[in-house]
Amino acid sequence: MGKLYIVGIGPGSKDQRTIKAQEVLQSSNVIIGYNTYLKLIADVLDGKEVIGAKMKEEIFRANTAIEKALEPKNIVSLVSSGDPQVYGMAGLVFDLLARRKLDIDIEVVPGVTAALAAAAKLGSPLSLDFVVISLSDLLIPAGEILHKVTKAAEGDFVIVFYNPINKKLLMDAMEIVSKYRKPNTPVGIVKSAYRDDENIILTTISSWRDYMEDIGMTTTMIIGNSLTYRYKNYMITPRGYERKYEI
Amino acid sequence: MGKLYIVGIGPGSKDQRTIKAQEVLQSSNVIIGYNTYLKLIADVLDGKEVIGAKMKEEIFRANTAIEKALEPKNIVSLVSSGDPQVYGMAGLVFDLLARRKLDIDIEVVPGVTAALAAAAKLGSPLSLDFVVISLSDLLIPAGEILHKVTKAAEGDFVIVFYNPINKKLLMDAMEIVSKYRKPNTPVGIVKSAYRDDENIILTTISSWRDYMEDIGMTTTMIIGNSLTYRYKNYMITPRGYERKYEI
Repeated sequence: MGKLYIVGIGPGSKDQRTIKAQEVLQSSNVIIGYNTYLKLIADVLDGKEVIGAKMKEEIFRANTAIEKALEPKNIVSLVSSGDPQVYGMAGLVFDLLARRKLDIDIEVVPGVTAALAAAAKLGSPLSLDFVVISLSDLLIPAGEILHKVTKAAEGDFVIVFYNPINKKLLMDAMEIVSKYRKPNTPVGIVKSAYRDDENIILTTISSWRDYMEDIGMTTTMIIGNSLTYRYKNYMITPRGYERKYEI
Repeated sequence: MGKLYIVGIGPGSKDQRTIKAQEVLQSSNVIIGYNTYLKLIADVLDGKEVIGAKMKEEIFRANTAIEKALEPKNIVSLVSSGDPQVYGMAGLVFDLLARRKLDIDIEVVPGVTAALAAAAKLGSPLSLDFVVISLSDLLIPAGEILHKVTKAAEGDFVIVFYNPINKKLLMDAMEIVSKYRKPNTPVGIVKSAYRDDENIILTTISSWRDYMEDIGMTTTMIIGNSLTYRYKNYMITPRGYERKYEI
């Protein structure tokens, strides 16, 4: 039997990969991924069996990775952008293993997920409790997603939206959040962090709609909690030291 | 003026750092951090000005980093384990900059936060929407924390607890969660992921108390949502493909 690595390649640029991810990619003889991700790791593909796939072919990719890893001596990397847990391939691969009652040699290699990458570009929005919610309703019904948005807003969590591709759902979600947060609450809209087409916008709950055209598949949105504020071009959620200490 | 990097060094082992973090640490002439973190990056400290500090000296560390970065030519790395946003130093540094009305050359270098590191060791628990909550009540009142736990449970989020150092608060939080989740819901208890004393426990909401003694400052706990299940030693949250496709 071979070995399967489910590898997070981070937000995009090579230097945001972990050293471990880089080593695993280099040592693999089979690399499988969505075509866009393969372009981001072009530096490690030479001389390997490379299996690309389109969007919405996740089940094909996952099963192919499992089949390849069942062959002796293969070292297989199945790549996801960011971290492979967070709306990446890990959940599907493990679910398929369980359904097929298989046991393979498998290791998840974590990576910098989009929430952390986007937050780094904005200052320090994620310094208190936060939620991560995908606004893609391809697999999950919109009603379930909006229920989660409501609870996140009620709990005064910093909120991170992934995959804001359905504009109607995004508007519904922001409408809910706006009932619980002040209009001037900072909103960060980060497109393609650490990629060539990176674009960073810092706006507010009352004005985010002005940037609707800038929001797409590779956008991550971060909405502040009741304590988040703006200073210069930074979105800052204070850690709470001011509650206890003179700072 | 110099430059300040706020650097996430990942969960612990060198190979879990990003390539960027490694480059930044190597190029810095001043490195500031909590003593335990400095031990984790002993490989890059040679020949540098190294300023260690104890726990609870965060304000000293942050102000020292700012002062050092205001000096010409200094390249300063202020290190946090995991990601510097997530209960790390970034929030405090930016808050101090704003309060002091300073503008310095500053860059956040993201890293693999404990939630992702722990999740990688467990299989794929974080494959659907999740919340990250700190159970430390040093800065935040217990009542606020438990309010967030309640909303997270109501929203059926996968829940990640950081800093479960107050056992009473942890028991109160788990009591709340247990009202919303089945007794056999998987619970992962990961201590020191990617460090020498790593310890991984997979248990359930009804049995987690058996491992109370294994829970400490470097523990991350992950509680599944209503869909999370166990297969062999894996904690699996399915992505939802089974709702739409034959898999």
